[in-house]
Amino acid sequence: MIWNEEAECMSREDIKEIQLKKLQNAVKKAYENVPYYNKKYTKLGVFPEDIGTLEDIAKLPFTTKDDLRESYPFGMFAVPPKKIVEVHSSSGTTGKPVVSGYTRKDLDNWSELMARGLNMMGVGEDDIIQNTHGYGLFTGGFGIHYGAQKVGSIVVPISTGQTRRQIEIMKDFGTTAMIFTPSYGLYLAEVAKEEGIDPKSIGLKAIGFGAEMWTEEMRKKIQDQFRAPAFNIYGLTELMGPGVAVECSSQNGLHISEDYFLPEIIDPNNGNKLDEGQKGELILTNLEREGMPIIRFRTKDITALHYEKCDCGRCFVKMDRITGRTDDMIKVKGVAIFPSQIEKTLLKIDNVEPHYQIIVSRPHLLDEIEVKVEASPDIFFDEVKEMVNIKKKIEDYIENEIGLRVKVSLIEPKSIPRSEGKAVRVIDKRDLH
Amino acid sequence: MIWNEEAECMSREDIKEIQLKKLQNAVKKAYENVPYYNKKYTKLGVFPEDIGTLEDIAKLPFTTKDDLRESYPFGMFAVPPKKIVEVHSSSGTTGKPVVSGYTRKDLDNWSELMARGLNMMGVGEDDIIQNTHGYGLFTGGFGIHYGAQKVGSIVVPISTGQTRRQIEIMKDFGTTAMIFTPSYGLYLAEVAKEEGIDPKSIGLKAIGFGAEMWTEEMRKKIQDQFRAPAFNIYGLTELMGPGVAVECSSQNGLHISEDYFLPEIIDPNNGNKLDEGQKGELILTNLEREGMPIIRFRTKDITALHYEKCDCGRCFVKMDRITGRTDDMIKVKGVAIFPSQIEKTLLKIDNVEPHYQIIVSRPHLLDEIEVKVEASPDIFFDEVKEMVNIKKKIEDYIENEIGLRVKVSLIEPKSIPRSEGKAVRVIDKRDLH
Ligand SMILES: [Zn+2]
Ligand SMILES: [Zn+2]
Repeated sequence: MIWNEEAECMSREDIKEIQLKKLQNAVKKAYENVPYYNKKYTKLGVFPEDIGTLEDIAKLPFTTKDDLRESYPFGMFAVPPKKIVEVHSSSGTTGKPVVSGYTRKDLDNWSELMARGLNMMGVGEDDIIQNTHGYGLFTGGFGIHYGAQKVGSIVVPISTGQTRRQIEIMKDFGTTAMIFTPSYGLYLAEVAKEEGIDPKSIGLKAIGFGAEMWTEEMRKKIQDQFRAPAFNIYGLTELMGPGVAVECSSQNGLHISEDYFLPEIIDPNNGNKLDEGQKGELILTNLEREGMPIIRFRTKDITALHYEKCDCGRCFVKMDRITGRTDDMIKVKGVAIFPSQIEKTLLKIDNVEPHYQIIVSRPHLLDEIEVKVEASPDIFFDEVKEMVNIKKKIEDYIENEIGLRVKVSLIEPKSIPRSEGKAVRVIDKRDLH
Repeated sequence: MIWNEEAECMSREDIKEIQLKKLQNAVKKAYENVPYYNKKYTKLGVFPEDIGTLEDIAKLPFTTKDDLRESYPFGMFAVPPKKIVEVHSSSGTTGKPVVSGYTRKDLDNWSELMARGLNMMGVGEDDIIQNTHGYGLFTGGFGIHYGAQKVGSIVVPISTGQTRRQIEIMKDFGTTAMIFTPSYGLYLAEVAKEEGIDPKSIGLKAIGFGAEMWTEEMRKKIQDQFRAPAFNIYGLTELMGPGVAVECSSQNGLHISEDYFLPEIIDPNNGNKLDEGQKGELILTNLEREGMPIIRFRTKDITALHYEKCDCGRCFVKMDRITGRTDDMIKVKGVAIFPSQIEKTLLKIDNVEPHYQIIVSRPHLLDEIEVKVEASPDIFFDEVKEMVNIKKKIEDYIENEIGLRVKVSLIEPKSIPRSEGKAVRVIDKRDLH
């Protein structure tokens, strides 16, 4: 059963027709009500009436995270404050945070988006969803929460942390769906086993991954540990929050709710549109947002779009899971490397754990990469020869994947700090200024 | 303007009539659907049809926190799991936690309760509410959140902690209503001043106090610091969450929403009903709860009820703010002492801060109380004589309030750990087993 068959199974023509109408309306509202768009469009000489086809969106300038920061706190709102009922915010680790504003209708739409997502994951009113995402200004917790309320499952808003309590509650409540970041999921499984509980015995039906990049190999590992399928959930605070796109039972891409978002893929270097199937930076436009319509947002996330019809019956375009970000790419000796490539490699090798850190340094004017990898407890206290062999094997595999020879150190099991949120994968010690 | 005039301004006769109908229905549902009530009522030989008047509630047994614990996790639910959409839980520091289950209608009712409360505080759709209560299994954050969405104000779900960011957001967003515990409010004011920001300059319209006991003197102090009225918010996870009772503009008691809750006051020692105005333990009964109807819950909170009509125009009974709990009462040399009594005393004395800790010990088979009080920075480095005078003055005042001589120590300003949640007021070092 598909949550909203009328929307999710529309023909491509209907989608395009609806998108064009909504795009014209969104651009008009943004132009009329948000000084940022008004100034920018006027300066470039492009106006709402210039949008005659969906392709005309290319005439409009991009909106960047910096643009949003400059309008801090409420400069991007398109309605009077009285109509805003909730705000969220992305983290402000560098500079001012971005504030995202929601009207009551925006919250309803957000609930609908995430309800579709939970439905894609096979989660419904009979399920108990344990939500380990943080609540607060961050949208992770609330998106799942609103979606769960909409589908009518029981939501357990436990939030991050308290790992032993998480496990106790999974068992005691009979949790059927877990929402976690992949790295936290691995950690939960590890602690459960320490407590003498086989994660398989919990009887999960579905796992939702959010807020972190991961690889197919990581998915397999977590699915094995919990004996449950794991689905990707994608979203951005700027555009709405989790639920922009979610993976269906086919597990080979995330359906973007195209009646709410218009996706494009561009070459991040020149901004040119890329074709279906080509990898590039995802650009998203809000088609239905009242409180804060974002037009052509540069997500910095790298993916590709696929329009062919999905086995699940849904017609919305699918995006690949995010394989990198234009800004967490490490450039070493001119080669672009993503942490996901290292992770993918490690998951192919026995006797090592997918817990790793990439340390980039420049000791003698030349970049060096060291990859610290946890050995499995089985081999760590074994003879040295075995360790040397594994180390060399990892170095070969990584070289094969990224085209560079790196130094690998096998370190003691559980010596890399476990994160209850996003794992720290890269430590860049170079002075890049 | 009163949020729900029809309900909140009913005549006493109408209230009683509605309460009786709802009580009969609640007891019937509990008896039919919850094994705990069924067994207990059957054993005592009391049945739903025995409730012919409101006074007949006295025939029913009390429900204690231990009863709820024993039915962990879902034993108190009165509907099939499919109908539950959200669960919360009280902290499980001692024994199993209590799980509270909500149907969709329960969440709507909770929103309505807290909307009435925010309206009593003068908060409406033009306001920006910064909610420093924690979100998660705890009900503090969500109760305020749902109420704020209902009245249509902007809710900033910032949650606990990050004090400097809290202050930045108050300033940047133009927050008009703050929700905090009194001790966290004091701390916020202190940090704001350290940052060179006068808390008065923020321009708050209202403050909501939750989750902690406080005194009139503490309220005056916080109102002075922020130049805004502060209102008490009362609630319990077991019965619903914040919003069970909230203080109105008269600031002399909290209106209990009597169409949702039936309050009684009993003598905690023998369970006998006490009259209007008499201090005792508050007993609460859910009149409208679908997911988990709680009948005659022993809150352990000490208060009194007042039925005279309020200046604000609302007709619901008022309860005094909580002045103690039957279980945080310290018994020393046979005298019952509440931390609130110490606090009240300190707030009457110049040159000391309302940051204190009560240390109870039994060094030579006799109980001793030491009260550590922070001196204000103005006097702490002054001459010893002045300090000795203040110390003696506090000892006199406390003796006057509680009838016992205690030892007071004046300690360095800011040396008592500041809490971002509930302050730790009592350290009992006696071995009471
Ligand atoms: Zn699909
Ligand atoms: Zn009143």
